[in-house]
Amino acid sequence: MLLYDSRLSGNCYKVRLLMARLGIACERIELSVVDRSDREEVLGGLNPALRVPTLELDDGRHLAESNAILWYLAEGTDLVPDDPFERAQVLQWMFFEQYDHEPNIGVARYWTTILGRAAQHAGDLGAKHEGGHKALAAMEDHLAARAWLVGERFTIADICLYAYTHMAGEGGFDLAGYPAVRAWLERVASQPGHVTIDA
Amino acid sequence: MLLYDSRLSGNCYKVRLLMARLGIACERIELSVVDRSDREEVLGGLNPALRVPTLELDDGRHLAESNAILWYLAEGTDLVPDDPFERAQVLQWMFFEQYDHEPNIGVARYWTTILGRAAQHAGDLGAKHEGGHKALAAMEDHLAARAWLVGERFTIADICLYAYTHMAGEGGFDLAGYPAVRAWLERVASQPGHVTIDA
Repeated sequence: MLLYDSRLSGNCYKVRLLMARLGIACERIELSVVDRSDREEVLGGLNPALRVPTLELDDGRHLAESNAILWYLAEGTDLVPDDPFERAQVLQWMFFEQYDHEPNIGVARYWTTILGRAAQHAGDLGAKHEGGHKALAAMEDHLAARAWLVGERFTIADICLYAYTHMAGEGGFDLAGYPAVRAWLERVASQPGHVTIDA
Repeated sequence: MLLYDSRLSGNCYKVRLLMARLGIACERIELSVVDRSDREEVLGGLNPALRVPTLELDDGRHLAESNAILWYLAEGTDLVPDDPFERAQVLQWMFFEQYDHEPNIGVARYWTTILGRAAQHAGDLGAKHEGGHKALAAMEDHLAARAWLVGERFTIADICLYAYTHMAGEGGFDLAGYPAVRAWLERVASQPGHVTIDA
């Protein structure tokens, strides 16, 4: 398989983290998340949103959206539950991640650390921080009495939400007030096959 | 089952549309999408994001996120493919909907028609229209050569994207330039068991 990738992107990191865990080998093509002028040329027809990650299967078909790729690679392994309700809970947390978490925490990190333009985005950063803290508080409430997001084991929901949560500091978020989230981050990082974002 | 619902919400409409198709009976509790002051009281502990739709199962468990609810109700029916790649494609389009489509087209409709405050949001509406037209153009490209979003039959990906697309005009989007999208909207509305958003 071939992954259209970015070393900086948390969405791409999710896929690399899952592949490392499952022992899946994959070639990587690096795309810039800053200069996107080649996106139509490289990803046109492969991904409706022209984003990384995009996965090319060995038979030449393509799949887009980080969380759909996680599901495709993990369904049938112990990282996706068999129980129908737990499967839907995994999807619940992955949709939460794309709607409430990444657009706040990931975008604040993008403006602040990747582009280095926090001052230029100062007007919008407040709303991103407010939304991001709401998402972190929802995770903290949920994880206060649980080791993992769904059921009693590590799933792709944990991989999904680990990516941008563990880098939240790069978006200006202080995790000091979220002890259950911090303990969960350590549990995820202790899983067999764990790799860092720069691996 | 019991659905925490809003008659105005496209995300809630997805669930009602699927239930009508599958012949699932469900009680509904109406929540306001304008005055959200009761959300913590009503949905606290049931939905991390305090949003509608939230589904209460007969055994008292709760599920959040419209697209996770669609998956839960439809998995095992002919509205979710059996093929692993097609299953992931259904999820790809549902994640696209929550990231690129609803935050632009749904939010523009919310500001313009539900709140009636287009003038107050004029500064941000331009970006919503630009993002929404990108999403519609991606759908148009994809549907130009296909009857349905995934495979060769109607799936929950079509239900998911129908909801806000068919109301895009309420957000100020003219669908005249998207003939394949308009033909697809008619195909969806012709499906057995179809109900309108105000049903």
